[in-house]
Amino acid sequence: MSSNTQPYLLTPGPITTSMSTKRAMLSDWGSWDQDFNDITAEVCERILTLANAKEHHVCVPVQGSGSFAVEATLGTIVPKDGKVLVLMNGAYGQRIAKSLDYMGRAHCSIDMGDYAPPKPEDVALMLATDLEITHVAVVYCETSSGILNPVAEIADVVKQAGKGLIIDAMSAFGALPVDATALPFDALISAANKCIEGVPGFGYAIIREDILRQCKGNAHSLCLDLFDQWTYLQKTGQWRFTPPTHVVAAFLQALKEHEAEGGVEGAMHVMRVIVTLWSQVCAI
Amino acid sequence: MSSNTQPYLLTPGPITTSMSTKRAMLSDWGSWDQDFNDITAEVCERILTLANAKEHHVCVPVQGSGSFAVEATLGTIVPKDGKVLVLMNGAYGQRIAKSLDYMGRAHCSIDMGDYAPPKPEDVALMLATDLEITHVAVVYCETSSGILNPVAEIADVVKQAGKGLIIDAMSAFGALPVDATALPFDALISAANKCIEGVPGFGYAIIREDILRQCKGNAHSLCLDLFDQWTYLQKTGQWRFTPPTHVVAAFLQALKEHEAEGGVEGAMHVMRVIVTLWSQVCAI
Repeated sequence: MSSNTQPYLLTPGPITTSMSTKRAMLSDWGSWDQDFNDITAEVCERILTLANAKEHHVCVPVQGSGSFAVEATLGTIVPKDGKVLVLMNGAYGQRIAKSLDYMGRAHCSIDMGDYAPPKPEDVALMLATDLEITHVAVVYCETSSGILNPVAEIADVVKQAGKGLIIDAMSAFGALPVDATALPFDALISAANKCIEGVPGFGYAIIREDILRQCKGNAHSLCLDLFDQWTYLQKTGQWRFTPPTHVVAAFLQALKEHEAEGGVEGAMHVMRVIVTLWSQVCAI
Repeated sequence: MSSNTQPYLLTPGPITTSMSTKRAMLSDWGSWDQDFNDITAEVCERILTLANAKEHHVCVPVQGSGSFAVEATLGTIVPKDGKVLVLMNGAYGQRIAKSLDYMGRAHCSIDMGDYAPPKPEDVALMLATDLEITHVAVVYCETSSGILNPVAEIADVVKQAGKGLIIDAMSAFGALPVDATALPFDALISAANKCIEGVPGFGYAIIREDILRQCKGNAHSLCLDLFDQWTYLQKTGQWRFTPPTHVVAAFLQALKEHEAEGGVEGAMHVMRVIVTLWSQVCAI
């Protein structure tokens, strides 16, 4: 039980957040005011720093859950005549394919069921065989099956084939290493309520700026158009449509606490401790 | 200045919310847990009661800002071969047309600029002339131009023509009367952070159940598919994808306070006081 006697949430997110993160929601902000624009700017800056992505990427937040951010990224990055190879091993890979169906984008898949990661050589073969494929989509940590996918190896074969890579890093970013100078991707997506430990209400994509500049007119949805969101954010410092102000303020607090607790290294340390304790419990 | 020395927000929303509404965000909820499902169910129940819509309508919440709820409703209710007559007199009418452009739905408009409401007889003439029109979309209170549109008169001519009516009631619902037994509409949309005075993070549509039942396969977006959201909600009591749990809890508190303060009548009384005071200030 936590200090305020509420049960701990051990779900993949929403999770139990710190009281200081929740208390950051005890103020109201005007969504067009400079003090809120400063919060948005600092959130985006911190996300890019965390991914070592400040040189070539931008951070684009979007209202809604993580799935909204994934759909928005797919719709914005993949052109209407593009084709996506979806690497599946659980519910979130399947959801990517379903999103593409809705927006009428062509796609194919390598489906490993719920038990195995995709093999990089199979991805390479698929890309060499089907030349219509323009992008590959992969889930970093497939929450539903518990599989940690080999994103670095997959990124290598995708880069060698000259295709774009979109990584759903929902349950990974903030807890597992992401270094944009070493991991080539077009876009990497996560949400406020996952490993950074904020409350739910928005997601974000880290996108290569040179790629995003070419994405005008791709999107299937006004609200999910990340090119338009980014253009407006650059021009005004504001989100296009009303942001979840309190959730964004809580996320900034969560980002500060994540840094103070050692960042990704700190999160990995906690995970190692949990795994060690769990192994000992299982061995008893 | 409010009691905690923060400035009052007199924006159309986000606004200054009560401290008790904000304090409702000091707990965490598992988005699949029964206690959170109970919050969602009570929110939907109270919304339907407020609109006197419990007999023939359902309430479908959706993650994101008010514009997400408007786009989701248009995409779900208007079939792919439908055509929408958009009544415009400001930014939010224009945004409806822009949403329809993105999703590839046919539309036409009566654009009154920023100064006048649409005339019901013009709407009737347009519906009699262009038989391809299947739906009419109107903004109840056009925040950007300050125009209160004659939704009751428009609803009458739309009903007489046998077409569907979609009302964006963003800055109206909770402060101006909505009685679904007297006002015929297919869908009426608002958001948490408007006249009910919750915090931003989701919107909702009040939709005729017999209409919504026919809407499978219409939507242009997985995340914005209100048929799918409603079906899942009915089956499980849960939102399809992660809801903004804290924002939903705050909205329930705001709904309770809205009721305690006299509901729509109470809000109208406050508005009358403000208008009277403002008139006196202007007369000085």
